[in-house]
Amino acid sequence: MPYAAPVSEIRFLLDHVAGFPTVSATDRFAEASGETVEAILTEAGKLCDEVLAPLQRKGDTDPARLENGVVRTPEGFGDGFRAIAEGGWIGLAAPERYGGMALPQTLAVAVNDMMSGACLALELNPLMSQGQIEALEHHASDEMKALYIPKLISGEWCGTMNLTEPQAGSDVGALATRAEPNGDGTYAVTGQKIYITWADNDFSANVCHLVLARLPDAVPGTKGISLFMVPKFLPEADGSPGARNALRVVSLEHKLGLHGSPTAVMSYEGATGWLVGEPNGGMAAMFTMMNNARLGVGVQGIGVAEAATQAALAYAMERRQGRVGGSGTIVEHADVRRMLATMRAETFAARAIALMCGVAIDLHTATGEAQHAARAAFLTPIAKAFGTETGIDVANLGVQVHGGMGFIEETGAAQFLRDVRVTAIYEGTNGIQALDLVGRKLADGGEAALRLLDEVEAGAEAAKADGLTELAEAVWDAAETLRETTEWLVAQPPAERGAAAVPYLKAFARVLGGHAHLAAARAGDARRQRLAAFYIARLLPEHAGLLRHVRAGAEALMAITADDLAA
Amino acid sequence: MPYAAPVSEIRFLLDHVAGFPTVSATDRFAEASGETVEAILTEAGKLCDEVLAPLQRKGDTDPARLENGVVRTPEGFGDGFRAIAEGGWIGLAAPERYGGMALPQTLAVAVNDMMSGACLALELNPLMSQGQIEALEHHASDEMKALYIPKLISGEWCGTMNLTEPQAGSDVGALATRAEPNGDGTYAVTGQKIYITWADNDFSANVCHLVLARLPDAVPGTKGISLFMVPKFLPEADGSPGARNALRVVSLEHKLGLHGSPTAVMSYEGATGWLVGEPNGGMAAMFTMMNNARLGVGVQGIGVAEAATQAALAYAMERRQGRVGGSGTIVEHADVRRMLATMRAETFAARAIALMCGVAIDLHTATGEAQHAARAAFLTPIAKAFGTETGIDVANLGVQVHGGMGFIEETGAAQFLRDVRVTAIYEGTNGIQALDLVGRKLADGGEAALRLLDEVEAGAEAAKADGLTELAEAVWDAAETLRETTEWLVAQPPAERGAAAVPYLKAFARVLGGHAHLAAARAGDARRQRLAAFYIARLLPEHAGLLRHVRAGAEALMAITADDLAA
Repeated sequence: MPYAAPVSEIRFLLDHVAGFPTVSATDRFAEASGETVEAILTEAGKLCDEVLAPLQRKGDTDPARLENGVVRTPEGFGDGFRAIAEGGWIGLAAPERYGGMALPQTLAVAVNDMMSGACLALELNPLMSQGQIEALEHHASDEMKALYIPKLISGEWCGTMNLTEPQAGSDVGALATRAEPNGDGTYAVTGQKIYITWADNDFSANVCHLVLARLPDAVPGTKGISLFMVPKFLPEADGSPGARNALRVVSLEHKLGLHGSPTAVMSYEGATGWLVGEPNGGMAAMFTMMNNARLGVGVQGIGVAEAATQAALAYAMERRQGRVGGSGTIVEHADVRRMLATMRAETFAARAIALMCGVAIDLHTATGEAQHAARAAFLTPIAKAFGTETGIDVANLGVQVHGGMGFIEETGAAQFLRDVRVTAIYEGTNGIQALDLVGRKLADGGEAALRLLDEVEAGAEAAKADGLTELAEAVWDAAETLRETTEWLVAQPPAERGAAAVPYLKAFARVLGGHAHLAAARAGDARRQRLAAFYIARLLPEHAGLLRHVRAGAEALMAITADDLAA
Repeated sequence: MPYAAPVSEIRFLLDHVAGFPTVSATDRFAEASGETVEAILTEAGKLCDEVLAPLQRKGDTDPARLENGVVRTPEGFGDGFRAIAEGGWIGLAAPERYGGMALPQTLAVAVNDMMSGACLALELNPLMSQGQIEALEHHASDEMKALYIPKLISGEWCGTMNLTEPQAGSDVGALATRAEPNGDGTYAVTGQKIYITWADNDFSANVCHLVLARLPDAVPGTKGISLFMVPKFLPEADGSPGARNALRVVSLEHKLGLHGSPTAVMSYEGATGWLVGEPNGGMAAMFTMMNNARLGVGVQGIGVAEAATQAALAYAMERRQGRVGGSGTIVEHADVRRMLATMRAETFAARAIALMCGVAIDLHTATGEAQHAARAAFLTPIAKAFGTETGIDVANLGVQVHGGMGFIEETGAAQFLRDVRVTAIYEGTNGIQALDLVGRKLADGGEAALRLLDEVEAGAEAAKADGLTELAEAVWDAAETLRETTEWLVAQPPAERGAAAVPYLKAFARVLGGHAHLAAARAGDARRQRLAAFYIARLLPEHAGLLRHVRAGAEALMAITADDLAA
């Protein structure tokens, strides 16, 4: 099951669908164009194909283990990690002064997509470091930045996020880990954290934990949370790792998937930590880290969708079964074709949304204009939830295309489904993403949403002028229905929005997918038009049912009691 | 995560939704009413709760193993199997003259549903025997029936189905296993079979393999296939197991789920077999077995959906997270309520369809009327495909309700998803079911389909007369749209039907689900009406998008080439 990084697909999306030329047109990212982009994607693609993809099965069959308090990672993961770091891929979007490449976030999205498709369990490690780099960049002291960021970028050290506690998951404000001043500017951090991704490894010289905890005088809830840097080894004056800190991996979880990535229960036992940012300002810092990670997790779903699509297509083009014409393989069966086309069309749509989000981030970085920040903020929960749902749905279809072989682990089709399943849960469940969308992201009265729909409708009008009448009208109509529902939704109280959140997010993604496919049909060849026609005729219509769900009302939903739900 | 067999839910469905009173009203099944039904379901439910459900986790963590050619099953499975057999549940619908209870198939559906929810990996074993009993009943000689069926019913022996070979899966006609006459009325069977469910065990005295093979003079394809009984031990004159036959388990598959159920590669090496039915009549006999098994597999999906719903509800009612009113648990969050309501409403719809199919089978048995056979034949692929899709979708939602805990194997939520995934594949993939529906099952010009839609519309009119105006109109409209699409579809050539098959089947299930919920709302209390309103307002509307997919056309689909699908 060879994986080939989708370099040309991503190039096409960047150039013709996601609006990346507007990023290259800024002074800030003037160098990120044409040949540079081609070289970056090609180089990253080569790493994915040759180094990372061969680790995929090993990451499942040779799980990360805890041996005498030390985490042992799957064979080859250390080499794979070093290859990622040496390629500069951890710091692709990080500032040059710390050794980063200062390239657009959009390209980091593209590279993370390819790395996720090649080996998700390993890609998760640098994704955590990338989030930590961004959090430190925005909130840490210059001294801390100078000490940590270069080592995170070089891969000498790795970074983690420590939010969750047994009683504090989606409700992070309930956390109880304490941080008491040691009197020397450091703090003693004490508490237990769970679900800590890549909490330890056997290939980096240090592991840097960003830990949410409470100062002694902190108020309850999220306003009393502070952020601390708590490294596994305390840095010496020269920056080398010194004494072992008072923290340990208690156990690793036995998970559905991502066996190559250790997920730990961590114990902090008066561990030495340094405050990051302001006292009680932990949530703001954490949000920086999480916003980056949310887009990154959406991209994980897309990468897995790509890999699952490639694997299913390769299988279908080889497997002979039944009397069919053409190639004589099962790809000639209409329903197999339907499944494969769904996989490709959905992966395309989800990837377009993630790249559009990357473009908005970059335009904000380059111009400082608020509208781009609003666009990025609006698209982030959609990119996360729809990207990960697509990963799950496409991997599930991939199992089906494989028939009986799909249920056999050696095929690898089932591993995609197992691995990607958690992406709809971590970094904020998809339900939380949808609440963010209909809450904070519609708090502007729907301005960001409606501005986006203006562009969808303008795109449809341009496509109509180009002669793609039928496709264009379907997308325009869908956008208009979504506009009406959006206008209705912003006028609703929070309870009503909460009940509508998930179907609304999905409907929005459906329409954006139609927009992306239509743009591809305008710019591309007959192949792009066939796939766009498939999406717009067969998948886009789902939006109407979803919007009826949106309008069905919170009252009727909440009237269903827990007793009603028992058999 | 305690499982409680849904006895009262099934009672309600039997009495008020699936039309079981019409079965009890026949002479043939006059005894199957009131207290008898109650006693049967209660007794089976007790077995499920007390004996089978406690085996569920063990079946995952203590997988079936092949040791020196012998299959070892998980601890407790042998006792569980004996309890099922001793309860009479294997032969619940089998003739009394062989030791069966001769009860309606509908009750077998109900009991299999409960056993599947309790422990799917084990339930799969008696399901195979049930299929074999039915195949022997219809096709074997009296002598063979008398020897095998009583032992299959008592659980002394177990039965299997051997169809698939490496090159012959969905295309069973491609199989190559040979059967050569020994000259004494027996045959020497030689070949390799794969994906053989429960091919061996360490708790039954014999394992009886029904094997599809070719006689020396057989024509190619399905018309040259014959069926053979090939037992692990050759029966002595007194019926006791004698010499070891020349067959063996080569290996067990390493599967995504159902670890407790051994799935084997089998080698037949000149094994002694007896012809079942006519030479070259194997497919007819196998279809008898598969038809039974298809409904049984749909029911497996429903059983797992039930168990996953119960587990998610229990978790949600215990887990505290975030500031919410009421119980203070996450069940108060609108999106959690939406997920749980979806799980319950879908499980209800799928269960109703399976029980309706059981009722049609029983009415045909009791009356011999062709219309009931046509109804059963029409509903079987829907019950199979929609039941199993529901199992997967509901188990997937169950993981999501559990949040991070859903990804941790010890919780059991992920196991439901892993276990149930194969049900959409085995006994004919769901794509094959849909092809059967739009091909053979619409070959009557749509008569069976339209007759069913007449009933849906009549039900809607009755509900409207009862004052359930809004719900009734939505169901009536959906049925009417489906009627129009059905009339269009029967006029299309096979290629067009093939492309439309899966969305058509799903749309039909959606409408039947609406019909069932509406019937429940008419007969039930406010609780039933709230759930019906949820389904009809939020899930039923999906049918419209699906029917647009149906009409989108085969040509546009098949124009998408394999090259188009590469990235």
